[in-house]
Amino acid sequence: MNPTVETVAGQLADIGRHCYERGWALGTSGNFSAVVRQKPLTLAITTSGVDKGLLESHHIVAIDEHGQVLQGSGTPSAEATLHLAIVRSRSAGAVLHTHSVWSTILSEATPDGSLTIEGYEMLKGLDGVGTHEHRERLPIVENTQNWTAAAPLIETILREHPEAHGFLIRGHGLYTWGKDLAEAKRQIEILEFLFEVMGRKRGMAWQQ
Amino acid sequence: MNPTVETVAGQLADIGRHCYERGWALGTSGNFSAVVRQKPLTLAITTSGVDKGLLESHHIVAIDEHGQVLQGSGTPSAEATLHLAIVRSRSAGAVLHTHSVWSTILSEATPDGSLTIEGYEMLKGLDGVGTHEHRERLPIVENTQNWTAAAPLIETILREHPEAHGFLIRGHGLYTWGKDLAEAKRQIEILEFLFEVMGRKRGMAWQQ
Amino acid sequence: MNPTVETVAGQLADIGRHCYERGWALGTSGNFSAVVRQKPLTLAITTSGVDKGLLESHHIVAIDEHGQVLQGSGTPSAEATLHLAIVRSRSAGAVLHTHSVWSTILSEATPDGSLTIEGYEMLKGLDGVGTHEHRERLPIVENTQNWTAAAPLIETILREHPEAHGFLIRGHGLYTWGKDLAEAKRQIEILEFLFEVMGRKRGMAWQQ
Amino acid sequence: MNPTVETVAGQLADIGRHCYERGWALGTSGNFSAVVRQKPLTLAITTSGVDKGLLESHHIVAIDEHGQVLQGSGTPSAEATLHLAIVRSRSAGAVLHTHSVWSTILSEATPDGSLTIEGYEMLKGLDGVGTHEHRERLPIVENTQNWTAAAPLIETILREHPEAHGFLIRGHGLYTWGKDLAEAKRQIEILEFLFEVMGRKRGMAWQQ
Repeated sequence: MNPTVETVAGQLADIGRHCYERGWALGTSGNFSAVVRQKPLTLAITTSGVDKGLLESHHIVAIDEHGQVLQGSGTPSAEATLHLAIVRSRSAGAVLHTHSVWSTILSEATPDGSLTIEGYEMLKGLDGVGTHEHRERLPIVENTQNWTAAAPLIETILREHPEAHGFLIRGHGLYTWGKDLAEAKRQIEILEFLFEVMGRKRGMAWQQ
Repeated sequence: MNPTVETVAGQLADIGRHCYERGWALGTSGNFSAVVRQKPLTLAITTSGVDKGLLESHHIVAIDEHGQVLQGSGTPSAEATLHLAIVRSRSAGAVLHTHSVWSTILSEATPDGSLTIEGYEMLKGLDGVGTHEHRERLPIVENTQNWTAAAPLIETILREHPEAHGFLIRGHGLYTWGKDLAEAKRQIEILEFLFEVMGRKRGMAWQQ
Repeated sequence: MNPTVETVAGQLADIGRHCYERGWALGTSGNFSAVVRQKPLTLAITTSGVDKGLLESHHIVAIDEHGQVLQGSGTPSAEATLHLAIVRSRSAGAVLHTHSVWSTILSEATPDGSLTIEGYEMLKGLDGVGTHEHRERLPIVENTQNWTAAAPLIETILREHPEAHGFLIRGHGLYTWGKDLAEAKRQIEILEFLFEVMGRKRGMAWQQ
Repeated sequence: MNPTVETVAGQLADIGRHCYERGWALGTSGNFSAVVRQKPLTLAITTSGVDKGLLESHHIVAIDEHGQVLQGSGTPSAEATLHLAIVRSRSAGAVLHTHSVWSTILSEATPDGSLTIEGYEMLKGLDGVGTHEHRERLPIVENTQNWTAAAPLIETILREHPEAHGFLIRGHGLYTWGKDLAEAKRQIEILEFLFEVMGRKRGMAWQQ
């Protein structure tokens, strides 16, 4: 039996306010989704323009695989196409997108198209990673205001980096996902922790 | 129908304590106002010398367009003239002034009279901004203890920068505004986030 | 009529937990006092070895001008002599001592015996300061484990810097005071804010 | 009379959530134990894979000196061998292991096998330290995924540094302990404070 939209909407609202408290979704930034039903796909997703510190269940709508609203009122996030692309490519049960200070800074810090993190015990919090000797390579994609047009590019990048647990959008933030909301939330925390470690190290004279 | 002074005072007290919690209005710093009635103008504004962590409705007074107290007890903030100038110049419904660590640092970090922020997705949280390709230029004005004398200068600066969503006072903090309190609060968060990004980047060896 | 020891102890416990929450009195660090009666002097002060996150009224004792316990159980802070010296020299109603990260760092950052802060609007939160053009010079004293022996030195320093609103102990933290607890608490916040501004600026490539 | 497993489990859950709130045990990182009975040894310890922000008593199991589960369900932390080694070597009543940003950074910051902290008043929060003139030397051990094999090495290191109040695992985090949970919690705060001081100082141009 599938969870109802209402149940999932309540969980997304909790996670949204949690991310706001952490400073990862200030103002109206960030958007969050979770699969309610796989076939046919029903995805609960935050609507546009909501202050994430005030996020409630009624700010969540249910959409189908084409982004059409099935239930609830409000416009789905402009990045719904991205969420749908990730759900499709990764068989994800939940997709979380945050705008933190450190992810914003690191998305600009590497000249090439990815950020590499390796050697940290905390990497073991990522799905399927069993050792600190893991090398996580997060693709960095250019920002755009037309995610419908950019969705195929994102699908290509996801296909080319099958092992990546997330990606960064330049000057914008992080996308990560998981088989369910608990896993996706854990991965946000793991990646944000590692971003802070890497960002702070770059501020140190002995380290570049 | 206009909201009553009491209602607006309660909202201002909530926002003041929120800013205190964030570290943007420590001690008695910061002041906050919102329009109760447009014609004739009635502005609810915080009084002087109140610990913002303890801000309550009764610390808010209503003033007229000349800064005279219409309702409540206490002295309006010494910067009331500034709030009135902003309400007049921008047809603002709310004006928020905070003293954060990052706005203080950045107000001193540029030799010329402004701080430019561009290329970040978070800029879309500012009123009327629809793309990260936006270039926000915040004027920086010199600090003074005589805002009555300085108000015409502020009005000139606001007129010369019609697109600016706020301004900085050197060594002092940020002024921003919005059509209502929710918009002004969102803009504080957006700008403070961007200040932190810019401030932290300047601390990095690879970035100046 | 004087407030009772119990009332003041409750206020000190509130401030202690607040400082713990801010990260200014972690573990058993920090100590706090307030005058209950001026003549003969009765000072309520925190006892030694208490986790400041768990501080309660019964962890506060009342002492006389010689540091003898008048009421309550437990050993007064080893720095009680310092509190008494400040109460005497400054006619203070409350003395607060915190160990923050930034005050610790800045206490080591200047080769000579003081830290100077000037030009910030936030300085106006200090007692009697009416303009950002104020120049605050905080003496820095060497740390010791024998404050009974060092008390005369502290009294000398306080006499030589009659305008100082606090002083730093090297590698240790801040002492500030006020006519009452509310003023002393406000000054802690003001000074900690300014320490953070100065500390962060020193981390920046463009600034020395 | 010994405390029951349930009582200790509740205390460990409180400390785990506290560490999560501080950012020292994000995601499923960190593990915590406390002795319930000395002879024969019964150790209450967190199980694997639990989100520390959601830690409850039923996520704690009791194990014997060989790491066999005596009570409760779930797999003890993979680092249980390490906890047992510390309890044995130090006669500790509680062992806490956290993954903070600063401990992670500092564990990589020194080329040799230890981190030295000296001259800070805050050191007095460590068990048995009575002066800021104390020199704390924390061994840094290489990370591994086989703590059963590494336990003898840890015991050797603990024996060679009888005065150390904790140790760091490279790229991983801090282990500290105490005669009881209150002391171990205090030491976590003391050491994390000192790590932040040292880490921030290294970010400053005037300091390396």
